Amino acid sequence: MDKHTDFLDALASLLGPKGVLRDPADHERYVQDWAGDRLGMPLAVARPKTTRQVSDTVKLCREYGIRMVPQGGHTGLVRGAMPDLESPELVISLERMDRIRQVDPLNFSIAVDAGCILETVKRAADAEDCYFPLSLGAQGSCQIGGNVATNAGGLNVLRYGMMRQLVMGLEVVLPDGRIWDGMHALHKDNRGYSLAQLFIGSEGTLGIVTGAVLKLSPRPERTQTALLAVPSIHAAMQLYALARRQCSDLLSAFELIPRGCIELALEAAPQLSDPLDTAYPHYVLLELAATGPVDLAEMLDALLARGMDDDLVLDGVLASSESQSQRLWQFRESMLEGQQQRGEHLRTDISVPTSALAGFAEAASQAVGAYSPDSTIIAYGHVGDGNLHFNVLPPATLTEPQKKALLHDIETALFEVVDRFNGSISAEHGIGRTKQAAYLARTSEVERELLAGLKQLLDPDQLMSMGRILPDPRAS
Amino acid sequence: MDKHTDFLDALASLLGPKGVLRDPADHERYVQDWAGDRLGMPLAVARPKTTRQVSDTVKLCREYGIRMVPQGGHTGLVRGAMPDLESPELVISLERMDRIRQVDPLNFSIAVDAGCILETVKRAADAEDCYFPLSLGAQGSCQIGGNVATNAGGLNVLRYGMMRQLVMGLEVVLPDGRIWDGMHALHKDNRGYSLAQLFIGSEGTLGIVTGAVLKLSPRPERTQTALLAVPSIHAAMQLYALARRQCSDLLSAFELIPRGCIELALEAAPQLSDPLDTAYPHYVLLELAATGPVDLAEMLDALLARGMDDDLVLDGVLASSESQSQRLWQFRESMLEGQQQRGEHLRTDISVPTSALAGFAEAASQAVGAYSPDSTIIAYGHVGDGNLHFNVLPPATLTEPQKKALLHDIETALFEVVDRFNGSISAEHGIGRTKQAAYLARTSEVERELLAGLKQLLDPDQLMSMGRILPDPRAS
Repeated sequence: MDKHTDFLDALASLLGPKGVLRDPADHERYVQDWAGDRLGMPLAVARPKTTRQVSDTVKLCREYGIRMVPQGGHTGLVRGAMPDLESPELVISLERMDRIRQVDPLNFSIAVDAGCILETVKRAADAEDCYFPLSLGAQGSCQIGGNVATNAGGLNVLRYGMMRQLVMGLEVVLPDGRIWDGMHALHKDNRGYSLAQLFIGSEGTLGIVTGAVLKLSPRPERTQTALLAVPSIHAAMQLYALARRQCSDLLSAFELIPRGCIELALEAAPQLSDPLDTAYPHYVLLELAATGPVDLAEMLDALLARGMDDDLVLDGVLASSESQSQRLWQFRESMLEGQQQRGEHLRTDISVPTSALAGFAEAASQAVGAYSPDSTIIAYGHVGDGNLHFNVLPPATLTEPQKKALLHDIETALFEVVDRFNGSISAEHGIGRTKQAAYLARTSEVERELLAGLKQLLDPDQLMSMGRILPDPRAS
Repeated sequence: MDKHTDFLDALASLLGPKGVLRDPADHERYVQDWAGDRLGMPLAVARPKTTRQVSDTVKLCREYGIRMVPQGGHTGLVRGAMPDLESPELVISLERMDRIRQVDPLNFSIAVDAGCILETVKRAADAEDCYFPLSLGAQGSCQIGGNVATNAGGLNVLRYGMMRQLVMGLEVVLPDGRIWDGMHALHKDNRGYSLAQLFIGSEGTLGIVTGAVLKLSPRPERTQTALLAVPSIHAAMQLYALARRQCSDLLSAFELIPRGCIELALEAAPQLSDPLDTAYPHYVLLELAATGPVDLAEMLDALLARGMDDDLVLDGVLASSESQSQRLWQFRESMLEGQQQRGEHLRTDISVPTSALAGFAEAASQAVGAYSPDSTIIAYGHVGDGNLHFNVLPPATLTEPQKKALLHDIETALFEVVDRFNGSISAEHGIGRTKQAAYLARTSEVERELLAGLKQLLDPDQLMSMGRILPDPRAS
């Protein structure tokens, strides 16, 4: 304990009284993630205010051999930023580094501290008539550093890409405390290996992102939203390919919503009413966005006419105002609440080639049905990216332990179907701790060695976010 | 010499008679790059036909301690793929690996061997009503593996990104001969560190790309091209920002062409006539592309009307047919020939934030003028990406050695201006050998150490493309 006390005293003199939370009573909000999971308690919470302070904190951890875990808005879904259960970690929260450093509307770029909340960044871009496209349910609390570290995705990936495509430059404190300054605001730069791309998606295991330069787009002036009934997932995917072709690159969202999700939404939000007179097996929520002289309504009409001719669209409702559009998006948001209200369920985050998605959904449904015919399948998602949240609600009649056991088995069966379709068991949520075993079991020896080599190169003392993505060599 | 003979005999029995070129008479076309540079002669040229053969070749090199350099279409501009001058290298040419593995139009993806010529890949996509957007002057001879290794850019980067944004999956033979299979055809995949991004742009120093899955787009049905006269580079950049905003994401090219380039084009292609009645200081060649119901002519008209109102556009010619559009693009192509005909000149490949480009061009012109008032500046490029080829033709009266010395000094002065504007000395061509010294001089110690660590991790025997990007420890 003496080592820890000495360390914390030294840390407090580095960061000042606001900079370190030592009292366990203050740790509560740093130990729980978006999914409500919690593991262990931290040694303490460090709240550095500058990149230099992050660097000094990391150097101190190294000196004392203290393990650390950087933390953003704790909205992750794979327990990556949660403090460890076994050995106490220092949580390094970036929350006080929340400065917008520079918006450059002529360069379509914004430079920010890692602790900036995504919503704040979006508003700062908006104020300069620009648009930062990353759009997530958690955008009111997630932080840019976490978005970078987890290569966040969300609703608009099909048009604007994931965080990997939106980062122009990064500033990172390495596990040895040195600062790597790669805060370039260049749209094109081809010098040496891309270190920025190595840090993006590394989930805090290779360094702490302290700043980022992000790519902005012109702010769309108008959007056009539609909720369309489609006869099958196969038809939805044909419609997607058609929409890509008919709507230039103006398609900004394409979400699959099965009937079950509409019902969950109606349960959770009684003010909503069934969007169409008849119930249909599947729906697609799509959005077009544009600036300048483009007639989106005409574009959407042409798509629907063609879609109906080809029997890909059965019925639909078009939003003719901003408030109608918001009402359509409420189905997407409320269905998540509805799902949550049903209690324990299996959440997955699968991707396959878009050409294989309908076949995958069918095979996956069969696999679940074979295991548990009374479970309810809720398969929705950003299918324009091939991303399906193929979720399963267990029969309500089971006990909690029975539910857990069943869902575990179903997950195993589902992941085998993913393998058959050359898919990914983590399309956007990352690996963290939750998916580590399933991930490593599917990773070749050569890839595992390369990953371990990279980790060893960047973090030779094995102190940063240990046990995420790769196993902790100290455990086991 | 015995070691080499033994090695070559073993290689010949691995790859068969067509697989190894031992006779120096056959090496001629493997020793010269696009810019006409040549360095040394290779030990031999290996021409493997399969990934397995590449793997076996690399393992054999390792066994005998033979250095190697992978080679695509040798259209690079930084001498990266040219065999070494000092120690003989085995050239590993991918030219016989030229199979289109699979086109999946519903997934908007194509899987190819690394030796496929870019033009072939574009045609294969086209045949399925898709579009592979990478567009380069060298597309008739450059190969996909080289495009990946150098993170190629070109004309359409502002809309579709560089190769880094167009790769979905890769297959790479590592410097130890093992095969890393990352041939995923997933639009969204968030598992572990991105190894693909590490190999992209590594210029053959970390492994040999043998296959790639590439992202396709819908094929644009229509384009609209215009050559516009603008009063200044500043106005051109204001027009760029306006075009981004007014034309949604449909802008596919935005090239700056100074008057001097029009004159070079007229010199090189006498069949061309001055595009406008009056000569103007600067021109912009822009292109819009779309599918579906979008009226590009109306969009362009609206942009021009606004541009003229804001004094950003002085005059212009719009292409109203495919052949007229091609005639406008001929100015872009012929000016390169004209530049070549003038003999020895300084070629640069600079990028700065687009908001700083006009200021950079002015400061750079002053720097060159101070050194050599009689030199001619030719500054053109993909300015929508902030990329300027700020080239300099020396006075014709100088001797060749005088020209070389002058251009070297001018380059040094120019790069200092780049530094002041937080720019890059290599926006798209890479580092290779040509830019190594200037690159390393601008790279922090921490970055140099990380790069060297990555190289050491992947290529501990130091056998692959040594001396490119990073210095060869054996030299010096």
